[in-house]
Amino acid sequence: MIPAEVVTPAVMIDADILDRNIQRMAAAMLSRGLNLRPHVKTHKTLEIARKQLAAGAIGITVATIGEAEVFAADGVKDIFIAYPLWVEASHADRLRALTAACRLAVGVDSAESATAMGRHLGADAASGEVLIEVDSGHHRSGVLPDEVVDVAKAAAAAGLSVQGVFTFPGHSYKPGMPTGAASNENEALGLAATALTSAGFEVTTISGGSTPTALIDGETVATELRPGVYVFGDAQQLELERCAWEDISLTVAATVVSRHEAAGGNVRRVVVDAGSKVLGSDRPDWATGYGRLPEYPEAKVTALSEHHATVVWPDSADLPALGTRLRVIPNHVCLAMNLVDEVTVVRDGSVVETWTVAARGRNN
Amino acid sequence: MIPAEVVTPAVMIDADILDRNIQRMAAAMLSRGLNLRPHVKTHKTLEIARKQLAAGAIGITVATIGEAEVFAADGVKDIFIAYPLWVEASHADRLRALTAACRLAVGVDSAESATAMGRHLGADAASGEVLIEVDSGHHRSGVLPDEVVDVAKAAAAAGLSVQGVFTFPGHSYKPGMPTGAASNENEALGLAATALTSAGFEVTTISGGSTPTALIDGETVATELRPGVYVFGDAQQLELERCAWEDISLTVAATVVSRHEAAGGNVRRVVVDAGSKVLGSDRPDWATGYGRLPEYPEAKVTALSEHHATVVWPDSADLPALGTRLRVIPNHVCLAMNLVDEVTVVRDGSVVETWTVAARGRNN
Repeated sequence: MIPAEVVTPAVMIDADILDRNIQRMAAAMLSRGLNLRPHVKTHKTLEIARKQLAAGAIGITVATIGEAEVFAADGVKDIFIAYPLWVEASHADRLRALTAACRLAVGVDSAESATAMGRHLGADAASGEVLIEVDSGHHRSGVLPDEVVDVAKAAAAAGLSVQGVFTFPGHSYKPGMPTGAASNENEALGLAATALTSAGFEVTTISGGSTPTALIDGETVATELRPGVYVFGDAQQLELERCAWEDISLTVAATVVSRHEAAGGNVRRVVVDAGSKVLGSDRPDWATGYGRLPEYPEAKVTALSEHHATVVWPDSADLPALGTRLRVIPNHVCLAMNLVDEVTVVRDGSVVETWTVAARGRNN
Repeated sequence: MIPAEVVTPAVMIDADILDRNIQRMAAAMLSRGLNLRPHVKTHKTLEIARKQLAAGAIGITVATIGEAEVFAADGVKDIFIAYPLWVEASHADRLRALTAACRLAVGVDSAESATAMGRHLGADAASGEVLIEVDSGHHRSGVLPDEVVDVAKAAAAAGLSVQGVFTFPGHSYKPGMPTGAASNENEALGLAATALTSAGFEVTTISGGSTPTALIDGETVATELRPGVYVFGDAQQLELERCAWEDISLTVAATVVSRHEAAGGNVRRVVVDAGSKVLGSDRPDWATGYGRLPEYPEAKVTALSEHHATVVWPDSADLPALGTRLRVIPNHVCLAMNLVDEVTVVRDGSVVETWTVAARGRNN
């Protein structure tokens, strides 16, 4: 499964599964009559964004100005920064350059930040489209639906062009929650869009998340969705039952470096050379561990140091020999991609390409 | 506190505090008669390693061959890879080049991996010094003290030069544990070294961890210690009471991008633009949150997304305005440094330098 030339630890992408995931989401959005604007913070990779756009995505979503710059430089013409930016003087020229290069929309979740953005953009404010962020239950950023009009009025007064509303139903990342979160999302977006329309704004975009909710069929008020993780899947999506084992396109190749049969009160375990510096250390409290092993679904990744993953082995299976190469599915694939400068692309068990993670580390 | 030219989020290092931390640890090791071999995985930065060596460190510790290569290329002459390497054919030439450039020791924790290392190094095996890893209670890698002799014999039979033993008392990372872990460390190292000596091996190095245990005075069998985090401190060390607020030399500069007074059942909070992609997401179950705010010790970082930290604000303090710049202490500073390509060095409130995180991402 791991080509011989791969030096562990290394992030590997199965090109066929990746392509299938991209096509499946594109087809699902098409059949629901929704635009697809994938969040590229998941992969930060030009080659994958190109595939998503070729499959019908109307544009991309990013989290930072720096990510937008990387993809705009590659020719992406429609970018949404789905983040409540607080615009400073240092951002203004960068935002102007982006609006010259592509259609750009940014998020805003307060009258003050809309005013600051307008002030710094000055005469160019009108080229800055904004979507107002709504809190649909995640309780992170975003305003409540009944506060949207105040923000929109401030944005309009600041010279910005109000395009609509967006939300991220992050509370969908819990067992049993995706369906309820999708319903919260729909309700919050509906209330917010109606409020804006009633106040005289023309709402052209109603934008929702997320991989856990995107494939839930049903009526929605959204005009577009912004899933990200669907291209790869990860252990969180697997344990939320939002993807199947065979949908996982990204794994970390690792080697057994330490091996311990039960002795002296210790648990039966191996240590592999993929730690938090390649897997990332997100671990929601409902997760079974720090990742999963596709070939050993019963194994548990019980601890993670920077360069060690401790894998408690199921009693039913032989403990693998030292030097055995194993694949690990990260809990949260967006963090794993942000830890490496390049990824190894595999097709039919052979390395076919190396991709640069072009926007890695572009945090601002 | 945050110089105006810093664009958030950004990792900032206070040069004076860094220097003081480096000097304090060097002086403590000198007064205990111990060699200091700092673990540079914490900072991965040439400038900081040079300061540590200038202050009297006898060499450095690294976690990977790739890290060793970066520091050897900068002229470091004594390097220990404190990791149970499983040596493959692809590593052999790299290890040979390192032993030509510097004195190199590597970790080993099984007869099989010693044999594999010797086989791949062939006639050059004798230049490969090894330290045998002992499990002193962390139960990650390492053998029990009474298994050390078997590993040493296999290493010697493979042509490797056995230099001694090492351990990492990782179970010190828990409230109340540092003192007990230091005692476990001392006991395990003592048993292992005695066993080796009794079996006829000359033990020249007995190597221990770690920042939580290094400054605990008392008799020790160790000849050297390998603390890493002490140069910066972090929220874990703070909450373990292994450093004080004024010892923290590394913080992440962040901006308040979203602000929520209690309303609609929501908690009173701000969101800052430093998420898991700059802070790292390690969060031991005993931690108060995902980091700490030095200027607001009562604030709690209750949630972390990739580009958002949710900070629940103490009732006793006014909620900061949008655009306020705040500093955040990461929970685990080694992960934060591994997320950025460069860091901003500040002295007396002014930016004085930018350092490259030269070994960032060198996972293999």
